[in-house]
Amino acid sequence: MSLLPKSVIITDDTMREGLQIESAEIPVDEKLRLLDALGETGEKVISIGSFAHPKWTPSMACIDEIAERFVPKPGVKYTAAVFNKRGFDRADAYYPKIDVRGKLHRISVELCDTFARRNYNRTQAEQIAGVDAAVATAREAGAEFGAVGLGNPFGSNYEGPFSMAQRMEMLDLLIGKWHNAGIKVSKVSFLDAMGWNMPHEVRETLLAIKERYPEVTDFHMHLHDSRGVTLTSYYEALQLGVREFDTSIGGMGGCPYCGNGRAAGHVPTEDFVNLCHELGIETGYDLDKLIEAAAIAEEVVGHSLWGHVSKSG
Amino acid sequence: MSLLPKSVIITDDTMREGLQIESAEIPVDEKLRLLDALGETGEKVISIGSFAHPKWTPSMACIDEIAERFVPKPGVKYTAAVFNKRGFDRADAYYPKIDVRGKLHRISVELCDTFARRNYNRTQAEQIAGVDAAVATAREAGAEFGAVGLGNPFGSNYEGPFSMAQRMEMLDLLIGKWHNAGIKVSKVSFLDAMGWNMPHEVRETLLAIKERYPEVTDFHMHLHDSRGVTLTSYYEALQLGVREFDTSIGGMGGCPYCGNGRAAGHVPTEDFVNLCHELGIETGYDLDKLIEAAAIAEEVVGHSLWGHVSKSG
Repeated sequence: MSLLPKSVIITDDTMREGLQIESAEIPVDEKLRLLDALGETGEKVISIGSFAHPKWTPSMACIDEIAERFVPKPGVKYTAAVFNKRGFDRADAYYPKIDVRGKLHRISVELCDTFARRNYNRTQAEQIAGVDAAVATAREAGAEFGAVGLGNPFGSNYEGPFSMAQRMEMLDLLIGKWHNAGIKVSKVSFLDAMGWNMPHEVRETLLAIKERYPEVTDFHMHLHDSRGVTLTSYYEALQLGVREFDTSIGGMGGCPYCGNGRAAGHVPTEDFVNLCHELGIETGYDLDKLIEAAAIAEEVVGHSLWGHVSKSG
Repeated sequence: MSLLPKSVIITDDTMREGLQIESAEIPVDEKLRLLDALGETGEKVISIGSFAHPKWTPSMACIDEIAERFVPKPGVKYTAAVFNKRGFDRADAYYPKIDVRGKLHRISVELCDTFARRNYNRTQAEQIAGVDAAVATAREAGAEFGAVGLGNPFGSNYEGPFSMAQRMEMLDLLIGKWHNAGIKVSKVSFLDAMGWNMPHEVRETLLAIKERYPEVTDFHMHLHDSRGVTLTSYYEALQLGVREFDTSIGGMGGCPYCGNGRAAGHVPTEDFVNLCHELGIETGYDLDKLIEAAAIAEEVVGHSLWGHVSKSG
């Protein structure tokens, strides 16, 4: 029996993941031109960048200017990356133009302690220690369902591969915290910043979670593509009915704190959208407009990108 | 039940598909350096180039010099692309250093007439008209089993997509010719030069052939990657027990007669080998040596390539 979804929600991370690894010197006008082109592609969700401290992510120093100046397109939801309460509040000041409230009730912990310290300035233990308070806040805010995020669930450039047992142990811990507060968990996010995903492990992990926690009905895939297999991992996730995916135009991306820079790009939005359409899955994207946006992205960053569909026409 | 094979045979097409789209000015010494590095990677089969007329493929004008000068590595089988009797005889003059005899009993016909004319200077009808004579020659040579090749089975830049019915009709015609000669067919090759493959269509086609022709035990995948999904197509083929794949270092490649040039690259050898190893499938390749060869390939062609594993380390 095919579990292929009828439609998917693709969040384009070009403006955040894509630009964060590019030069901080790209003029704001150029970034706005790219954001405008992305808005024309008919996509449902666009991340406009991250509300991070410019000391850590210089290319995002202009995020407030971007947030103020861009003109939203009808039908597009604009969101942003936020990493703490301060970032959340900065982004939420632009609500409803920018909506980060959907992220409120997601509790994420890194499987890799080294990455937690480098990327978030907190140890894994500190992340875990903060979970109870976060759950309590969500309950007070009236959260009906909780969400959990597994950071670098498949492995890390610093600590090597993580096992299924390690993934399930962390999941048990996080879901247990929600259950202690009397709240069921409806969504699990895979936040694979360093790109250690392999399609068969994605499949096995999804099956294991579905079996142990039937309450989890939604999965969200944010997998980086360090090993060239992430489109295949997404394909496996589609086969199991997963509906939320993050991608970027031309596969732009890379993590400043992963030790391999540009190597950890994304799945190219245009290639994934084309695959979905070939599978009969609705994406809300206009592929021709996406290919135009990819051409603009190449102009803005000043080098060629890694999408295929945009080049074969 | 998993049909994953225990091992696969990967033919590296870097020297042929990779170099045919690169400058004809690359010195022979540099090409020999790359071939030497490829030989060190432990791979089982390397295509050294194509014995085509230099008028059509200028970058292969040096093929005889390459064939004469390269020093074979122990355990590596060297082969080449041949497109007609003359090319076969030119390559076979180097037997056993270069072995093209395995291709003797493969009868291939293009689904795309336009491509047949552009790439082989023959119409599809002329290709079909030549099949009986080719089968007769194979029978006289004592062929125990026949093989058939489907050219551009999934679609063409000139004529659009081909349907399952069109694929099966051509297959019936070709297998029927072998059967008329009293010879069973053991292998089907997919020769997707223009890169129209989609993973679900690869899966459905393999299943259809297995059901209709249980005598076919081997499949050979030569799929180009115009749409970024070919590693996923190979993954689906692995799931159905397919054991023969063509790839190239860094995804180098492209077809001079396809109308989209470089866009129709290959699956990067290093990414596919890494995936196979992660799946527990033996390839015979040494991944570290492959990554060294990818670095040499970038030096030889003078630009960066498209592999992932070679960049993430």
